[in-house]
Amino acid sequence: MVIVRIVVDGMGGDNCPNAIVEGCVLAQKEYDIEIFITGPKELISKELKKYNVNTNKITIVDAREVISPEEHPAMAVRRKKNSSLSKALYMVKNGEANAVISAGSTGAFLTGATLIVGRIKGINRPALAPVMPGKNAPFMVIDCGANAECKPKNLIQFALMGDIYFKKIMGVDNPTIGLVNIGTEEGKGNELTKETYNMLKQMKFNFVGNVEAREISTGNVNVLVCDGFVGNTVLKMYEGVSMNLFSIIKKEMLSSFRGKIGGLMLKPVFKKIAKDFDYKEYGGAAFLGVDGICIKAHGSSDAKAIKNAIAQSVKYYNNKIIESIKSELEEINNEFE
Amino acid sequence: MVIVRIVVDGMGGDNCPNAIVEGCVLAQKEYDIEIFITGPKELISKELKKYNVNTNKITIVDAREVISPEEHPAMAVRRKKNSSLSKALYMVKNGEANAVISAGSTGAFLTGATLIVGRIKGINRPALAPVMPGKNAPFMVIDCGANAECKPKNLIQFALMGDIYFKKIMGVDNPTIGLVNIGTEEGKGNELTKETYNMLKQMKFNFVGNVEAREISTGNVNVLVCDGFVGNTVLKMYEGVSMNLFSIIKKEMLSSFRGKIGGLMLKPVFKKIAKDFDYKEYGGAAFLGVDGICIKAHGSSDAKAIKNAIAQSVKYYNNKIIESIKSELEEINNEFE
Repeated sequence: MVIVRIVVDGMGGDNCPNAIVEGCVLAQKEYDIEIFITGPKELISKELKKYNVNTNKITIVDAREVISPEEHPAMAVRRKKNSSLSKALYMVKNGEANAVISAGSTGAFLTGATLIVGRIKGINRPALAPVMPGKNAPFMVIDCGANAECKPKNLIQFALMGDIYFKKIMGVDNPTIGLVNIGTEEGKGNELTKETYNMLKQMKFNFVGNVEAREISTGNVNVLVCDGFVGNTVLKMYEGVSMNLFSIIKKEMLSSFRGKIGGLMLKPVFKKIAKDFDYKEYGGAAFLGVDGICIKAHGSSDAKAIKNAIAQSVKYYNNKIIESIKSELEEINNEFE
Repeated sequence: MVIVRIVVDGMGGDNCPNAIVEGCVLAQKEYDIEIFITGPKELISKELKKYNVNTNKITIVDAREVISPEEHPAMAVRRKKNSSLSKALYMVKNGEANAVISAGSTGAFLTGATLIVGRIKGINRPALAPVMPGKNAPFMVIDCGANAECKPKNLIQFALMGDIYFKKIMGVDNPTIGLVNIGTEEGKGNELTKETYNMLKQMKFNFVGNVEAREISTGNVNVLVCDGFVGNTVLKMYEGVSMNLFSIIKKEMLSSFRGKIGGLMLKPVFKKIAKDFDYKEYGGAAFLGVDGICIKAHGSSDAKAIKNAIAQSVKYYNNKIIESIKSELEEINNEFE
């Protein structure tokens, strides 16, 4: 069996490079893979030395520049060819690595992946597609912010890619596909959703119709299709509302003696919920539609999140998702030529 | 002082007519107002008889038809002139009432209000504008679903109306206005938000720039401007995520003895949170931009919610919000002619 080679941007994310390096070490111990870490050699090397690692299987790729989240994504990627991100992307482009993972600037990652790795032929707009924990099951929202403006054809391609990914990575046989909309009945929404609805219902997907935002976090529908503006709003509302609610509960608990005792009693409950709703479980957000495995890990990723993103990219590779997208795409695109 | 006359759709909402009638009775006892309730005379009368009311101040307006949420809004309003909703709207149109409240079908209410009551001259698109409880303060999202497709000029008018409403109803001197967007920096988003940003920053509002969905539920920004598709998504994510989280916490608490005890200890905490986050506190969602006071109460409104929506419309009337919109509008519209 071929050994999967994964390159990780050593200088991306809030906890770089320490958590990134630790995550790589953990993953390398668990899976039979080869890992490359990009970043300033001495910095990454210093981190690596903390662990007892097989140096044949983890290689440092020296990269002297770093792209910060404040920089203009397209400019930064174009100018900083020696950044930890660009070098990682070029390794995938050149076939030196099978997958790339970064917890750095989302904008730079998406732009860089599109410019350097390139789109799958026939995919007009690659899409960011995180899988999130829901009340009853995990669900995917595609697109979550790569395309602020979309056409129906883009959303159809999102459905196709989400369907394949959910099947192969999440192991769901015939994933349900929903269209995020502001009403459940056919004919609701804006021009984009109305037209997309009409197209989706004629296709081979397990299309369940419109899904209102109220239902999304139940996880009752597997793949939720929408433009990147709406998807980003969904994702960030989910994060924001959950975070605020837990912080309110905590504050109120700590404001009385009785609350403190109750809080202590409920510690296992809150711990279980935190575990069940840990976004890190599902790795990072796949950037689907580029011609290489590109995973955007959360900016606040810890070592476990990085390890899981690596595991995800191994699965992504072994399940030949890009090949499936290519072969199923032709069929779909022919319908709309 | 003039006595405010309010007409309430007796047949709208999940708990009609009982909760509607009870809410009217409660409001009438608290405020010196005159109330009209539309609906089948014998049905409303039967409910009213349960209470000891001043029959001079609560009048039943016989309406034999009911619009159900399943009907096509525009068709239903046009055809069913004798529905409880249409009759209520005509009373505002004809000056027989100063405000209308309905907990029925949102679509029919918005369409009916636009068709029957009519727009304020110069307002292109009226907008649904609920005030919601946030972590640190209440906030308004405008538009929450009346306009799936918007132009920058519409959003500017939303900002204007939200600003006036928040000042006069919520008592905030110089409300902060934010643009819901998928990034905080200027230049982020889609064509609509980019152009709206440029316009808003040149205007007299206390514009604080782009606001990501993650921040919305903090309530740190008073008025959040967006198109109705995005606003509806925000509103329903807020509802859905909160509901799901509390149901998960409840389920986990009840699954162990220790959890049950902890839950009992925390009862006052959860009660306080439920009270602080009770959407009913702020009445219903104002439909701003129509030439009459039109309040959409939540479909699941109980008597308290109806009472608060009535109180809200009294404040709306006494603070001359429609007059303010008219006078400030001219100034704004001149800038874009």
